[in-house]
Amino acid sequence: MSQSSWIRKMFEEGDNLKKQYGAENVFDLSLGNPNVEPPARFQELLQQVVQEASPNKHGYMPNAGYVETRRALADYLGRLHGVALTHNQVIITCGAGGALNVILKTLLDEGDEVIVPTPYFVEYRFYVDNAGGVTKLVKTKDDFSLDLGAIAAAITEKTKVVLINSPNNPTGKVYDAAAIKGLADILREKSAALGREIFLLSDEPYRDIVYDGIEVPSILAAYRHSIIASSYSKSLSLPGERIGYLAMNPEMTEAATVLDGAILCNRILGFVNAPALMQRVVAGLQGNHVDVEVYQRKRDLLCAGLSSLGYRFPKPEGAFYLFVRSPLKDDVAFVNTLLRERVITVPGSGFGGPGYFRIAYCVDDRTILKALEGFARAREGLPAQE
Amino acid sequence: MSQSSWIRKMFEEGDNLKKQYGAENVFDLSLGNPNVEPPARFQELLQQVVQEASPNKHGYMPNAGYVETRRALADYLGRLHGVALTHNQVIITCGAGGALNVILKTLLDEGDEVIVPTPYFVEYRFYVDNAGGVTKLVKTKDDFSLDLGAIAAAITEKTKVVLINSPNNPTGKVYDAAAIKGLADILREKSAALGREIFLLSDEPYRDIVYDGIEVPSILAAYRHSIIASSYSKSLSLPGERIGYLAMNPEMTEAATVLDGAILCNRILGFVNAPALMQRVVAGLQGNHVDVEVYQRKRDLLCAGLSSLGYRFPKPEGAFYLFVRSPLKDDVAFVNTLLRERVITVPGSGFGGPGYFRIAYCVDDRTILKALEGFARAREGLPAQE
Repeated sequence: MSQSSWIRKMFEEGDNLKKQYGAENVFDLSLGNPNVEPPARFQELLQQVVQEASPNKHGYMPNAGYVETRRALADYLGRLHGVALTHNQVIITCGAGGALNVILKTLLDEGDEVIVPTPYFVEYRFYVDNAGGVTKLVKTKDDFSLDLGAIAAAITEKTKVVLINSPNNPTGKVYDAAAIKGLADILREKSAALGREIFLLSDEPYRDIVYDGIEVPSILAAYRHSIIASSYSKSLSLPGERIGYLAMNPEMTEAATVLDGAILCNRILGFVNAPALMQRVVAGLQGNHVDVEVYQRKRDLLCAGLSSLGYRFPKPEGAFYLFVRSPLKDDVAFVNTLLRERVITVPGSGFGGPGYFRIAYCVDDRTILKALEGFARAREGLPAQE
Repeated sequence: MSQSSWIRKMFEEGDNLKKQYGAENVFDLSLGNPNVEPPARFQELLQQVVQEASPNKHGYMPNAGYVETRRALADYLGRLHGVALTHNQVIITCGAGGALNVILKTLLDEGDEVIVPTPYFVEYRFYVDNAGGVTKLVKTKDDFSLDLGAIAAAITEKTKVVLINSPNNPTGKVYDAAAIKGLADILREKSAALGREIFLLSDEPYRDIVYDGIEVPSILAAYRHSIIASSYSKSLSLPGERIGYLAMNPEMTEAATVLDGAILCNRILGFVNAPALMQRVVAGLQGNHVDVEVYQRKRDLLCAGLSSLGYRFPKPEGAFYLFVRSPLKDDVAFVNTLLRERVITVPGSGFGGPGYFRIAYCVDDRTILKALEGFARAREGLPAQE
């Protein structure tokens, strides 16, 4: 329990401050809870699905999900990634958290290693542990790009999975095509040397939330033993509804076995199936997403403000997080300084990235502007950073 | 994978036969997928909740669920069980399957034993295994009532949990007040001897589906270290929506620690929270349930028919299953005989109850009547049973 989430801890600190000072006087940048409403089409489709009279509408369906939903998703992802996907390569899951638990349980044997670049979403460590695996953390470079040499060096005969997250939480980094190609080359070479496959698992719920026309390269196109875990939590602003998916490369050796294993794990881990009603709604929303420009404007507002105050950070290319270098060496101490200004952030230590702190900017503009006042005061008197 | 579910296996056999002979010529009694529609109030509330304009409507909420839903549930369960429950004793979960995985992960250390009376819902074995525990099966008596002596004898220094399921899947048995009191007495005595508590965990999604005015005794009232796992899957016919709960005895030692642990496990197992929309709907449906008389009539139709054909079984008191003695010693062989009649049932071996087979009678009356024709032919020429 002591390993529990810094994110939730700070979120609860924020809640206590809100009770004390009033919600309007606390500037909560702790949680990735999207403040942009789902697209209008979502509400239309939801109403439509709710009105439909059909038998067994809220009943069990195959554990992998409705075939119609799986087909719609496979068609969309197939076009997006330029690979020939069918519904036999996708499973609808209870969010990306569910998807990751299911696929890790499917792939890992006791003691198998999962390589995760840091900073990272620390829940991964629990997910790997749930499946009996061992998390091996590998630092990214200063600009949060993949350190391919370090990843190659970390691969051992126990390595089963490399788990990446792009656009990244907490850094907003998007790994570019060269990085993904380089990673795929390493994994092919190491797999050949090991005489078995290393899987590339990509957690990409922020794929649709990218800025300045940047593209998120496809792992399915780049590497044969690749699996996507994702959700509609951020792209459609539905994190509370727990609707996500797994998509597997159809070229994978024993793809059918992995699929069957994942369907079994979806059942026996207690998920059973993704929520029925939402499965039907998202079937009709392939390619839809929230208005990303809203997030881009928030990013720009925040980055400009922080930068002019002397804060230093690589500008995020996607997601809605900013990972800022802490003006104090001790990031927890600086987060506490911000807390006294009633600005709630999360220490980088909570992401395996000490010396930084994370800002979630999926909040209204007033919160950003008021927080900037706090950021200004918290930085006063501290030395300049390069 | 080879341990996978007989239920799903037979359901898929049924699907294949349906493709071959047409759905109307296959009589599928394999799956507990309720055929009674949710109560009218459910559809009203669902529409109302969908229309409501509120910010962050589909967003994250506390991992334990909306406080409003937890309060409504705690009030209802508190009255039902005659104990003082607050929202601090309940967590909304992704179905009962989610609830069981969460609480087992919370309670079990590696190697801890969980006692389960048989026949039983075999998924339990996976759930216990997921949490690093060991399942210890203990037979019930011939009428499927608890064998208290056998349970007492099975308790060791490793026993952490006794997991019961009443009304029972697959037998339809409801453990009476004397049985629950007797079990509680044993657990108190054994806990005292061990110097630590054994938990009584009751999986009771069929609590509302009972016949002939029978009552399901309360484990919360009977035993201090007791926890209920349940769902709205059967009582409201919503199994596909994955909405259930955990309710803990407020008198439990360290109740707050168990609650915090379960909230953490709900998050890190990848459930994160129960689906947001359905949480709001069920908040207003406490005490509502499907029309149970429909199931009772189906039970009576099926029991009368099978009995007159010479089949033997204890009459179910709840749920919508019948666990019938196989006319052949080999239950799998007899289920295959039924399969040739295009009647789909599940061998008792799939429930740790060889020599029996399970019928799920949550189907339309025509299916029951046509299946009875098949049951008649399958029994022809076989010796009478006592």
